[in-house]
Amino acid sequence: MAAPLPTPDSPLPTRSPLPTPRTYAILGTGALGGFYGARLQQAGCEVHFLLHRDYNHVRERGLVIHSIDGDFALPQVHAYSTVNQMPACDVVIVSLKTIQNHLLPQLLPPVLKENGVVLVLQNGLGIETEIAEIVGADRVMGGLCFLCSNKTAPGEIHHLDYKQITLGDYAPDYAPCGMTERMRQIAADFERAGIPIEPAEDLFLARWKKLVWNIPFNGLSVVLNATTQQMMADEQIRQLAEQLMQEVVAGAKACVSHLGGEGDRQVPGAFIQTMLEYTVKMKPYRTSMKIDYDEKRPLEVEAIFGNPLRMVQQAGKELPRIQMLYQQLKFLDRQNMATDESIRTISGC
Amino acid sequence: MAAPLPTPDSPLPTRSPLPTPRTYAILGTGALGGFYGARLQQAGCEVHFLLHRDYNHVRERGLVIHSIDGDFALPQVHAYSTVNQMPACDVVIVSLKTIQNHLLPQLLPPVLKENGVVLVLQNGLGIETEIAEIVGADRVMGGLCFLCSNKTAPGEIHHLDYKQITLGDYAPDYAPCGMTERMRQIAADFERAGIPIEPAEDLFLARWKKLVWNIPFNGLSVVLNATTQQMMADEQIRQLAEQLMQEVVAGAKACVSHLGGEGDRQVPGAFIQTMLEYTVKMKPYRTSMKIDYDEKRPLEVEAIFGNPLRMVQQAGKELPRIQMLYQQLKFLDRQNMATDESIRTISGC
Repeated sequence: MAAPLPTPDSPLPTRSPLPTPRTYAILGTGALGGFYGARLQQAGCEVHFLLHRDYNHVRERGLVIHSIDGDFALPQVHAYSTVNQMPACDVVIVSLKTIQNHLLPQLLPPVLKENGVVLVLQNGLGIETEIAEIVGADRVMGGLCFLCSNKTAPGEIHHLDYKQITLGDYAPDYAPCGMTERMRQIAADFERAGIPIEPAEDLFLARWKKLVWNIPFNGLSVVLNATTQQMMADEQIRQLAEQLMQEVVAGAKACVSHLGGEGDRQVPGAFIQTMLEYTVKMKPYRTSMKIDYDEKRPLEVEAIFGNPLRMVQQAGKELPRIQMLYQQLKFLDRQNMATDESIRTISGC
Repeated sequence: MAAPLPTPDSPLPTRSPLPTPRTYAILGTGALGGFYGARLQQAGCEVHFLLHRDYNHVRERGLVIHSIDGDFALPQVHAYSTVNQMPACDVVIVSLKTIQNHLLPQLLPPVLKENGVVLVLQNGLGIETEIAEIVGADRVMGGLCFLCSNKTAPGEIHHLDYKQITLGDYAPDYAPCGMTERMRQIAADFERAGIPIEPAEDLFLARWKKLVWNIPFNGLSVVLNATTQQMMADEQIRQLAEQLMQEVVAGAKACVSHLGGEGDRQVPGAFIQTMLEYTVKMKPYRTSMKIDYDEKRPLEVEAIFGNPLRMVQQAGKELPRIQMLYQQLKFLDRQNMATDESIRTISGC
């Protein structure tokens, strides 16, 4: 997609290229952070892993990855239970669940080098802006992971399908950044580790495009207790999913317009049909939000639903179906958390 | 409320007064039809009960009512397993679940006297119009029951709370009918049986007013697996319930306008707050749709959601939240019915 030049009233922040070789910190060594961190270390990068519940196990035995690409083990990894013992790194990957992002003001400063960058590998919208307030707008990037993986035991990750990352740089108000040198540098590290990188010249649009899928299917899978296959087999829910997707596209358009963006910064109309057809063809899939719900973990409702809704509301537009899904999920999340206090403690990732 | 005169292009059908005394048929002797029928018989009316599953039991042992008003038994009732053995009656009460209304073209003609009337004691909208096509528009009336009762065993009904009926006469396109002689006659029978009757001069508006409560709370109780108390204790769901109620009020307004009705035929704005406050104050309540869902019975989605939505759509208006609730309920209903084929057979009421 074409990356319009930044508007004169929001100049891009200065961005230093990263040194070579680059060191990595993984904040949240779960199914996602553990997988990408292990692949980077396997490819020769220096990687430092922050863990919580699994700290002792991983410090003693390392990480084991069962993967469709081939299994491998890393008997020794740099494991930490606190950021204060970690070295400052060039790239700090945030792979926590977004419900733990209130910890970031404490977690990020000690592990981020002066000219380093925070790479947000989380779902949803608006996280880069929150992190920019902690570390400065010139030290944030975002990535969208298309990854099917589960943590099956402490230090043990099953990688089932997909792995690519859409990577984009960040500027205030999500102004499009085009390609930056540090995007190329990080892409090179990941591609050496066998992870395909799709560069996004417009991170905002890339995040909205992911919401086109995540909002209907993550949300409805929880409310309807259903897999993607069950939902797509139902005429009413196919229609509802499409209507929700249309609201996402309308929301993106309203926000871009509100931020003074160019008219060509929008999700193409054909994208909705592409996503619907893709969902029909994919294997029956329990969404990540449904897995969280079933495991009695808190849901990432604010990152995926609340933040986009508030941003669209500020742009003066209403998205009634997405708002209703948000209201339903907030209720179900609270009920789910209230039913068993003992599981309420949040795991390391 | 004021009953506007009928518009000249939809003259009211002629309506004969009913004879005295009046005979009653109860089509569907369950928690609702069984309760009202038993009270009418107790008060001296001749009542004929149609049963399905419970026919043998009730024919031999009659009906037992446990009630907050005092328990009573009717050891002998006129019980039938088929309409062909029933006498034609002056008032035929339809107290089946609406999902069985496809049976009405067979059930109604044999039990309805030439100058008799069908009284629809079902939830939702549009049923009177369907029945008018079977028996003629001059032989239909409607009632809305505010009744908490359960069938606890064959022939055994528990009456827990409330009992009043809002009663209105029917004309094509739901033109308001004001008070009619046969409304007074039927009200007299019910009031002799201790059932308070609120006459509705505008049945259409009365049905929409009941939907103001039924649409949010019946629908959301199933989707969210929640009681009225749990929903009203949640800020998001209180907001959503109010938004759904606003859509109901807007839907009623659009329909009245589309049918060429007078501007004063609308649900008063203050009604929404009244209903919300009433719901906060009521005992924790599992809605009738939730009970049906939990008992693996088919849901009355079309009568309560589908018919109003289609009517509003014909009036050129969209109700996105109600439509979304409809889509979700259709899915959940289908999944619920698919999980256990053996319970799919529909009971007598």
